[in-house]
Amino acid sequence: MRGEYMSCVFCEIIKGNIPCRKIYEDEFCIAFLDIAGDVDGHTLVIPKKHCENILDCDNETLAQTMNTVKLVSEHYTEICGYDGVNLLNACGESAHQSVFHLHFHVIPREKGDGINSWPSFKGAKISLDEMLEKLRLQ
Amino acid sequence: MRGEYMSCVFCEIIKGNIPCRKIYEDEFCIAFLDIAGDVDGHTLVIPKKHCENILDCDNETLAQTMNTVKLVSEHYTEICGYDGVNLLNACGESAHQSVFHLHFHVIPREKGDGINSWPSFKGAKISLDEMLEKLRLQ
Repeated sequence: MRGEYMSCVFCEIIKGNIPCRKIYEDEFCIAFLDIAGDVDGHTLVIPKKHCENILDCDNETLAQTMNTVKLVSEHYTEICGYDGVNLLNACGESAHQSVFHLHFHVIPREKGDGINSWPSFKGAKISLDEMLEKLRLQ
Repeated sequence: MRGEYMSCVFCEIIKGNIPCRKIYEDEFCIAFLDIAGDVDGHTLVIPKKHCENILDCDNETLAQTMNTVKLVSEHYTEICGYDGVNLLNACGESAHQSVFHLHFHVIPREKGDGINSWPSFKGAKISLDEMLEKLRLQ
């Protein structure tokens, strides 16, 4: 486990040692605004139990985190005037994970907002059949 | 519920009426390769129980889906030579959801793969404090 409790910025936010703009909190999770200000409503949902990412997270903690992702998304779409959300997660340095405490990004969306929430992929290097041979689990 | 069972392409894949390049299947979920071929290993994880998206999904089905997302991600990083994954989900037309059956995109990553998995946001239109006022749940 990379992020030690004492040095993890999200654990410090959970403990209240670092301020945040809190959207929601319950026994298991908190949701707060990302400080980047890169897009309206950019929210982070994190479990209070420290885990590095989905690979380092027990199924119960992952389920609690997703329940909060859903709750926040329902609030944004049913109450706050948005039509949908995009969810983003980075797991590992190569995926550009920057804080090693599990977090899901919630991006609220509305028709005509002009946001392109999809990454620009440049095309696969191998064929779909080669991918299948490489990746299938069963 | 928008996607009727008979007209949902992912339900047809689950029933075996439409072929797919299957990565994994269990009682609750299947994972298969996205046909876009836009990036190596682009995988979709879906529940067998039809739900439109996270807003239309019971917590148990969402948890089962995330357990499969995690299982597939573990396989890709522990066995298949990748270092991490990005997870993406679109919920609602405004978020550019195209198939209205819940699906998480898993993008396997490796160091130096040159992929920019982060959308290009153009900056928020309102301040963080205005966002907090608009969005907080409690």
